[in-house]
Amino acid sequence: MTEQSEAVTAAVVVIGDEVLSGRTRDTNSGHIAETLTRLGVDLREIRVVPDEQPAIVEAVNALRARVTYVFTTGGIGPTHDDITADAVAVAFGVGIDHDPRAVAMLQERFSGPGELNEGRLRMARIPFGAELIANPISKAPGFRLENVIVMAGVPAIMRAMLDEVAPTLKTGEPILSETVRADAKEGDVATPLAAVQRAHPDVAIGSYPFMDGGRFNTNLVIRSRKPEALAAARAAVIEMLAGLPRS
Amino acid sequence: MTEQSEAVTAAVVVIGDEVLSGRTRDTNSGHIAETLTRLGVDLREIRVVPDEQPAIVEAVNALRARVTYVFTTGGIGPTHDDITADAVAVAFGVGIDHDPRAVAMLQERFSGPGELNEGRLRMARIPFGAELIANPISKAPGFRLENVIVMAGVPAIMRAMLDEVAPTLKTGEPILSETVRADAKEGDVATPLAAVQRAHPDVAIGSYPFMDGGRFNTNLVIRSRKPEALAAARAAVIEMLAGLPRS
Repeated sequence: MTEQSEAVTAAVVVIGDEVLSGRTRDTNSGHIAETLTRLGVDLREIRVVPDEQPAIVEAVNALRARVTYVFTTGGIGPTHDDITADAVAVAFGVGIDHDPRAVAMLQERFSGPGELNEGRLRMARIPFGAELIANPISKAPGFRLENVIVMAGVPAIMRAMLDEVAPTLKTGEPILSETVRADAKEGDVATPLAAVQRAHPDVAIGSYPFMDGGRFNTNLVIRSRKPEALAAARAAVIEMLAGLPRS
Repeated sequence: MTEQSEAVTAAVVVIGDEVLSGRTRDTNSGHIAETLTRLGVDLREIRVVPDEQPAIVEAVNALRARVTYVFTTGGIGPTHDDITADAVAVAFGVGIDHDPRAVAMLQERFSGPGELNEGRLRMARIPFGAELIANPISKAPGFRLENVIVMAGVPAIMRAMLDEVAPTLKTGEPILSETVRADAKEGDVATPLAAVQRAHPDVAIGSYPFMDGGRFNTNLVIRSRKPEALAAARAAVIEMLAGLPRS
C-alpha cells in the first residue's frame, strides 16, 4: 500500500426526530455511504439522533475523535427546531454568530424587502472558525469545522453540498467488490464459503440472503483493495459453487 | 400522566457492512421506528455498525444501559460473517452454545439427510439465558437477552420477529401527531412558528421542507401525548398560517 492509502474513515450523524418517529425514511446516509465507498473512505458508523442538543453534542464529539470525517445531515434550516449549528458550536466549545459571508449568500437569494427575515437569518449562524460549504440550490450554506462537515437534511441540497465537499476530502484506495449470485441457499453455502474466506484473508466475503421469487437465494459479495486478491477469491467462490451438491 | 405512561424508550443497532458500504439500503430501522411510535415507545437512537465484534459489543453495551429496549437486526444467519449472537454473548459476559430448543426448531425445517449441516447449526447458537423469538418464515430463531432483542436482517423475517415480540413489550402512551401543510416556504413560517411553539410547550412542532413540484413547501408536524394540547396547537398553527403575508 502507498502512503496515501492509509485508512481514511468516516461517520454519519443523521439529526432528525422525523427519522426516529418513522415518519421520514432517511435516504441521505445511503447516498453518503455510496459516495464514500467510491472515494475509498471507510464509513465506520451511522447514528440517527433526535433534535436535542445533548444528543447531537455527544454523537459529534464521540465520533469526531475516532474517524477522519464526520458528516452531519439535518437541522440547519430557519425554524426553531433547527439546532445543529448551535450544537456543533457547543461540541467544539466555540462561539457562534451570524457570519457575514453566509449573510451575503442569503442576500443573493432573498433580496426583496423583508425577505431576509429573522428566521432566514438563523441560517447564517455559523460557529466561529468554520469554512462555509456552498449551497447551489437554496444558498443557505453548510459548513465545515475541523473534521466535521455539516450539511442540510433536504436530500437534493445535501447531495449538492456533498458534491462541493467531496473534492476536498482525503481519499483512500477504493474498495473493489464483486457480487456472485450463488443460486443456492445460504445454509448450503456456509461451510465451504467459510473455507474460501480462510484461504483468502486479503478479501472480506459477505453473504446476503434474499428472496428470489418466493425462494431464498444468496448474494456473495467479495471486497478487497487488492485487484489480484479479489480476482483469486472470486474464482475460488465460483469453483466452490460449482462443486455444491444441488438439491 | 398515568403510571403506565412512564417513558418507554428504545434504540436500534443495525449490524451490516453492506449498509455502511451503501450496497444495501436499510429499511428495517424505519419499520421498527414506525412500529415503536405506534406502541408509544420513544426511539432514541439508531446506530449502524460494521460486522465486527468490538463495534457490536460497544454499541449494544452503550445503548442497553440507556434505554428500555435495544433491537438489533442482522448477523444471525449461517455464514462466517454472522457474528451477532457471539457478540451479544460477549457484551453480556455470558457463554453461548447450540441451544436444544433452537436446534429443534431448525430440525423442523431441515429434516432431510445432511440438511441441518454445520452452517445451519450455527443459527442455533444462542447466548445462555436468552429467550427465543419464533421465526415463522424460516424457523431459525431470534432471541431476547434481558432488554436486548436480536432479530434477523432479512426484512420479511425481521418483521415477523418484531410481530412476535411486540405484544410482550412495555408500551407508553402513543405520541399523537398532526401534519399541516403550510403552503409556504419554511423561511416565511419560521418566526411566527417559533412563537406558536413557545405558546404551546406541551407539543413539539417540527418543520420539514420538501420540494413540491420544483418549489419549496413545508410540512409542519405537531406531536404530543396530550390530545387537547395537540388540537390547540394545531388550531394555532392553522391560524398563524392564515395570517401569513402571501408572496
